[in-house]
Amino acid sequence: MIDVRRHNAAFCRDHFLHHCEEQVRRAIDSHDMLRDGDRVLVAVSGGKDSLALWEILGRLGYQADGLYLGLGIGDYSDESGRYARAYAADHGRTLVEVDLAGEYGYDIPRAAHATHRSPCGACGLSKRHLFNRAALEGGYNVVATGHNLDDEAAVLLGNVLRWDAAYLGRQYPVLPASAGFARKVKPLVRLGEREMAAYCVLRGIDYQVEECPMADGNRHLGFKEVLNALEDRSPGTKAAFLFGFLEHGHDHFAAAADVERDTLAPCSVCGSPTTGDVCAFCRLGERVAVELSRKAE
Amino acid sequence: MIDVRRHNAAFCRDHFLHHCEEQVRRAIDSHDMLRDGDRVLVAVSGGKDSLALWEILGRLGYQADGLYLGLGIGDYSDESGRYARAYAADHGRTLVEVDLAGEYGYDIPRAAHATHRSPCGACGLSKRHLFNRAALEGGYNVVATGHNLDDEAAVLLGNVLRWDAAYLGRQYPVLPASAGFARKVKPLVRLGEREMAAYCVLRGIDYQVEECPMADGNRHLGFKEVLNALEDRSPGTKAAFLFGFLEHGHDHFAAAADVERDTLAPCSVCGSPTTGDVCAFCRLGERVAVELSRKAE
Repeated sequence: MIDVRRHNAAFCRDHFLHHCEEQVRRAIDSHDMLRDGDRVLVAVSGGKDSLALWEILGRLGYQADGLYLGLGIGDYSDESGRYARAYAADHGRTLVEVDLAGEYGYDIPRAAHATHRSPCGACGLSKRHLFNRAALEGGYNVVATGHNLDDEAAVLLGNVLRWDAAYLGRQYPVLPASAGFARKVKPLVRLGEREMAAYCVLRGIDYQVEECPMADGNRHLGFKEVLNALEDRSPGTKAAFLFGFLEHGHDHFAAAADVERDTLAPCSVCGSPTTGDVCAFCRLGERVAVELSRKAE
Repeated sequence: MIDVRRHNAAFCRDHFLHHCEEQVRRAIDSHDMLRDGDRVLVAVSGGKDSLALWEILGRLGYQADGLYLGLGIGDYSDESGRYARAYAADHGRTLVEVDLAGEYGYDIPRAAHATHRSPCGACGLSKRHLFNRAALEGGYNVVATGHNLDDEAAVLLGNVLRWDAAYLGRQYPVLPASAGFARKVKPLVRLGEREMAAYCVLRGIDYQVEECPMADGNRHLGFKEVLNALEDRSPGTKAAFLFGFLEHGHDHFAAAADVERDTLAPCSVCGSPTTGDVCAFCRLGERVAVELSRKAE
């Protein structure tokens, strides 16, 4: 029996699996995330969310390949990669791999150290850049990520605590394609973290259970804790917060995101759209290169 | 030495008192809360915020009387009333008193019990109604309340978790007068709870230290706890949240509050503006009367 308090429901195995898949179908339909003929690239970390997403998209009849990004976070990355590859091999799916260190000469720990940036900041911007680039280069028009309800509610809390209009305007389960950007979709937005873990267990999907060791104590996890405390008192808080925003809040801020998008021009180094001259990913790479060469002297 | 982490400052006694009074002056000026010739009624509970507000308004040269509302919450109310009266007597200020049980035949515990409403809901609506009525009847054109930064941030968090557009539109440090409503102002909005307590201690103002026993475990206190946890990690979170909303969020929701205000008509019982036929305060009174007469049978 799997208990989903925010739906005030308890499901047996088969109904729970059906519930999860139906929630993904509803998210895709209601936000017009995917259409016939789309070529979808799933960002696969080896964790529960991305593997469940890959599984569910397949069950719903979508043709989706996976992309695994080697971030170089020690044993954690090695193990995560093994889970991603094992899933692909066992299910006969295509997994594209990009290795940050192999292709760009640095990994996330080195980038964080060299730039004095939080590792999560460097990691997030690298992932966004490289997922998009891999999609465009591989002829995929959609990038699907495994952000779940807990993730999105925590991001929303962070954005709302600062009332950052451009971030609020950009936070939506589907971001349409635009010049230099593949469409981005988050089909798990109606499902919580615990549901995704239960889904994997019931489907027999092995996944990386550890949290990223570099994320320990970051703000995002703090926002999750706070929302968990509120959810414990009032089940349904997270869903009301996120879906209330999507229905009654987001539109007010969409203009701020549009303004930002209108100022995008190709990065003078890599050609990706950016608001500056050089995109954040290339600037990160340059700073890391400078720092590494300084140390070598 | 008083430490105010969100300002990254530590003040000696005199500078701290000056800081508090300046923050009130800034709040009043920047939101055009008070003007020459205003007759101000301060809602005085006997707690730190309302007594500090009364003190600071006097020091800033405003002519302000106090209003104490007897809510009938046992020893807590008796004691609170004594603090309010003692302050008025010691400082030669005028304190208007309204006793809920004496004038309406019930108190907050009875109202909550009879209506199966949360006591805080019944209390809040009674206070809003009676403060406004006392102001209009007494010829005051402004009601000033002691809501501080912590209070307002917690209310904002509750409103934002539900994305309640009308509530978000109404949440502002000054609400202009409109037909049947005195202007409402919150001059302590730039000062935190701990600052208000320190202010009272340093000014030698005795206040009710106990929290209302009926509020124990309510949602509002849960939101405060959550914000305190976030503030501990990142000092300035609450101020950024509230002031960010006032600058970048509120305007988007003001229209929703306007729509609601446009539908107001006089309550058929008491004449106060309401969106229904009978206002929430009179409906509360009717339900309590029905319940009490049922028990008497």
